[in-house]
Amino acid sequence: MNDSMGVGRELPPALVARLTACLGERFSLSSGVRAHHGHDESHFPDQPPQAVAFVASTAEVVEVVRACAEYGVPLIPYGTGTSLEGHVLAPYGGVSVDVSQMNHVLEIDAEDMLAVVQPGVTRKQLNAALRGTGLFFPIDPGADASIGGMAATRASGTNAVRYGTMRENVLALEVVLADGRVLRTGTRAKKASAGYDLTRLFVGSEGTLGIFTEITVRLHPLPEDSAVAVVRFPSMQAAVETVIHTIQSGVPIGRVEFLDEVSIHAINRYSKTDLAEAPTLFFEFQGSPRAIEEQVALVGELAREHGAEDFSWASRPEERSRLWEARHQAYFACINLRPGCRGITTDSCVPISKLAEAVLRARAAIDASGLIAPILGHVGDGNFHTVILIDPEDAAELERAETLSAELVEIAQSLGGTCSGEHGVGMGKRAFVAREAGEAGVAVMRAIKTALDPRGILNPGKLVP
Amino acid sequence: MNDSMGVGRELPPALVARLTACLGERFSLSSGVRAHHGHDESHFPDQPPQAVAFVASTAEVVEVVRACAEYGVPLIPYGTGTSLEGHVLAPYGGVSVDVSQMNHVLEIDAEDMLAVVQPGVTRKQLNAALRGTGLFFPIDPGADASIGGMAATRASGTNAVRYGTMRENVLALEVVLADGRVLRTGTRAKKASAGYDLTRLFVGSEGTLGIFTEITVRLHPLPEDSAVAVVRFPSMQAAVETVIHTIQSGVPIGRVEFLDEVSIHAINRYSKTDLAEAPTLFFEFQGSPRAIEEQVALVGELAREHGAEDFSWASRPEERSRLWEARHQAYFACINLRPGCRGITTDSCVPISKLAEAVLRARAAIDASGLIAPILGHVGDGNFHTVILIDPEDAAELERAETLSAELVEIAQSLGGTCSGEHGVGMGKRAFVAREAGEAGVAVMRAIKTALDPRGILNPGKLVP
Repeated sequence: MNDSMGVGRELPPALVARLTACLGERFSLSSGVRAHHGHDESHFPDQPPQAVAFVASTAEVVEVVRACAEYGVPLIPYGTGTSLEGHVLAPYGGVSVDVSQMNHVLEIDAEDMLAVVQPGVTRKQLNAALRGTGLFFPIDPGADASIGGMAATRASGTNAVRYGTMRENVLALEVVLADGRVLRTGTRAKKASAGYDLTRLFVGSEGTLGIFTEITVRLHPLPEDSAVAVVRFPSMQAAVETVIHTIQSGVPIGRVEFLDEVSIHAINRYSKTDLAEAPTLFFEFQGSPRAIEEQVALVGELAREHGAEDFSWASRPEERSRLWEARHQAYFACINLRPGCRGITTDSCVPISKLAEAVLRARAAIDASGLIAPILGHVGDGNFHTVILIDPEDAAELERAETLSAELVEIAQSLGGTCSGEHGVGMGKRAFVAREAGEAGVAVMRAIKTALDPRGILNPGKLVP
Repeated sequence: MNDSMGVGRELPPALVARLTACLGERFSLSSGVRAHHGHDESHFPDQPPQAVAFVASTAEVVEVVRACAEYGVPLIPYGTGTSLEGHVLAPYGGVSVDVSQMNHVLEIDAEDMLAVVQPGVTRKQLNAALRGTGLFFPIDPGADASIGGMAATRASGTNAVRYGTMRENVLALEVVLADGRVLRTGTRAKKASAGYDLTRLFVGSEGTLGIFTEITVRLHPLPEDSAVAVVRFPSMQAAVETVIHTIQSGVPIGRVEFLDEVSIHAINRYSKTDLAEAPTLFFEFQGSPRAIEEQVALVGELAREHGAEDFSWASRPEERSRLWEARHQAYFACINLRPGCRGITTDSCVPISKLAEAVLRARAAIDASGLIAPILGHVGDGNFHTVILIDPEDAAELERAETLSAELVEIAQSLGGTCSGEHGVGMGKRAFVAREAGEAGVAVMRAIKTALDPRGILNPGKLVP
C-alpha cells in the first residue's frame, strides 16, 4: 500500500464525477458522513474514508468497484459499524461502501430452511421477517449486526455452541470481486464436493477478497421449548469446569455463557438487574419438554458436583429475554464501569479442555497488569473475552493494555487455540495471525489475496498479515 | 498441461535416482505397482503413474515434492484407491504418492474430542483405535477410505445428516505445498475468525493444492443408544416425501437412507438378505432411550401418513450391523447385478424440498434411457446416487450412460443443487463444475490453483475446470 492510495489527498475529480453520476446524493463527501463511517466499536482512533457510497443494488456495487479499481482507490465495505477490530476504518483512505440500503430479505424458503438476504439486512430484521414461519436465524453476536458484516467476519456468539458460526450457516454468496466481476458461490444443497469451497474462503475474508451483495443463510426450527438458568459458583474454576464437563458429556446445550463477578457487577449497574456478584453461568436448554428435563438433570448434577450455590430459573419468556438482553449489553455495561473509557476486547478461543487454564491465566495476567478487565464469553465453544478498560488519551495505559492483550493471545495460542474466536482480524490482530498461521500460512494467505486483488484495493490494511 | 509432463515418456533418470536414494525400495517403477495405482472404483480406464512413492513421513513427502517440482513432474496423492471419480489416475503421468504407510493415529484427545492422524489411517482403523473412549469418528462414505482421501474429497456418507461432512469435521491440516513448504492450517479450538479459512479451502481440494500429511478430526460421543428401522413404502414418492417431512420437522435423525426396489433386489442377491423389494428407507435413531422414543413416534406417524406398509425393527446390535453392512455393500451389489459391468455413479444433491422431484425425474430419465441404474442415497441431505451399469467395452452404451449422467446433473443444478454431493469432481465432473460455478467461479478457482501451484504439478487433470 503506498501513498498514492490517497491518505490525506482528495479523490480524483473524475472519480468523484463518475460516482456522483452513478449514485447522485447517495455518494457523499460530507465530513459528518465520512466521520461516522470512520468509526466503529473498537478502540482504534477514527479513520474516515474520503467518501461514502450508499449503494442500493449489486449493479451499483459493480459500478463503484469498477470506478475505484480504475483509479486504484481503496474500497471499504460498511454494514452497521459494530466491528470490534477496526474493520470499517480507512487507514489508506478510499471509498466506504455502505450497504445499509441493501436491506431486503429477498426470499424466505421455509421448506428448505434458508433465506436469501441483501448484506445490509440485520439479524434482528431477518428474525422479525421470519415470525410465523416456525424458523429462526440463530447466529447472534450480541450487536444487531448486518448479515453481510457477520459473514465477512465469520461471526458467532451465544448460540454457536449449538448452531455453529457463520462458517456453518452461510450456504451461498454473491460477491463483487476486485475487478467488478460478480461471483456466485455455493448452491442451495446442504452439502457439496464440487470444487474449491469458495463460500468458506469468502466467509471471514473481511472485505479483502470481495464485497458481499447477497447471502444465503441456513435457518433452523425454533426450539419447541426452552428454559434458562442462572447458576452461581464459588469460583471461576468451578464454573468453567462445569462447562468443560457439560460439553464433554455431549449435552446439546442451547447456550452457556460465563460472566465473572466484575461482569455481573457491571451488568447490575447498567441493566438494573440484581444478580449475585459471583462467577456465574447463564444456561439455555432447548428442545422438547422431556429433552430439556433430561438436560437439566444432567447439567444440574454436574453443577452441584462443582459446588454450584444457586440455581435460579427464568421460566417466563419476558424474564428470559431480559436476562439475554442484559448479557448482550454486557460489553457496554463493562465500558460503562469507567466513564469515558474505551475497551480493548480480547477474543481467545481454546480447546475446551484448556478453558479453565486459559481463563485462570487470563485472570492472573489481568491482575498483574493492574488494569480493569472483566472476563465473559461463550465458554461452551472455549471462547471468552476480556474487556480491557482504557483511557484512550493515556498512552502509557494503552501500551500496558496492548501488552496484556498480546499476553492473552499468547496464552491461547500456546494452549492450541486462536487469537480470534469470532471478532475477526481487522487492524489489530494481523501480527497475531501471522504467528498462528506460520510462515507458509501467511504466504498462502498473501498469494490468495494477490491472486484475487492484485492491486490491493479491497479493504487494505486488514486481515492479511 | 503439456506433453513435457511425461505421458508415455520415462521419468528423468536423475529424478529416479534421487527418489530411489530417498526411499529405497519404497520407490517403485514396477508395472504391477503402477497398474494398481492407476486404477480406482470409477468407470474411467486405468491410467497408471510412471512411478509410485510409498512415503512414510512428512519429511519424505517434502523430499518427493521438491524433487518432482524441480523436474515439473506431476504428483498424484494415493490413499486407498476407492475414489469414484478417477482422482488417483495419472492422465499426465507422474509419481503416485502413496500414503498408506503413513497410517499412524498420532493422538487421541478424548477431552477435546479430537484425533490427529496421518493421511493413510482409514476410518475403520481410527474407530478401532477409539474403542473404549466413548467417542467415534462418524464420517462414513461406505468404503473403508483413508482419512486423507476423505478430507481431500470432502467425503460424507450415511451419518452426514446428523454429524456433517468432512467440511465440518476437519479441524486442522498439515499440508505439503507444491514447492515443498509445509503449511499448518487451523487450530484445536472449535471455531476461529483468524484469517482466511485455509482448512476449508484445502478440504475438498482433491490433491490439487497440496498433499495432506496430517489431519486433525473432530470426534463425537457415541450415542447412548440407537435403534434401526427398515420401512417399506408403496412408492418412491411416498418414501422421499416422508424424508422431506422428517427433515423439515427438525428431528435429529441419525441416518436415513433411501433404496429403490432395484437396489433392494441387488442387496438381497449380494448380501443374502430377504428384504421386501420395494422402495425402502433405512432409519437410524440415536440418543437416550427417551429421545429415541420421541423420534420414533414422530417419524412413525409421518411414515404412516405417507402409506408406509411395514416397519421392521433391528434391535440387536448384530442385526443392525448386518443391515448397515448390506447398505454399505450396495454399490458392489448393484455392480454385481450385471456381471462384468462397471458403474457410472451419479451424485446429485438438491435442496430437501426438491428431493422428490429430483428423484422422480431421475427415475424417468433412467427409464427413457433404457439403461439399468438403481437409485439409492443419503436422502436426509438431499443427496442420492444412481449407479448406471455399463459394459465398458460398448462405446455406444458408454455414450448413452454419459448422456444420462449429464441429464441427471442438469436436473440437480436446475433445482438449485449440485453435480457432486460427496464424491468430488475428479476427472469426470469438471465441465459440470464449470457450469455450476459460472465464469467468475471458474476464474477464481483457476486463480487460486495458479497462485498455489503455478506449474500445475499437483494432481493435474482433476477438479479445476
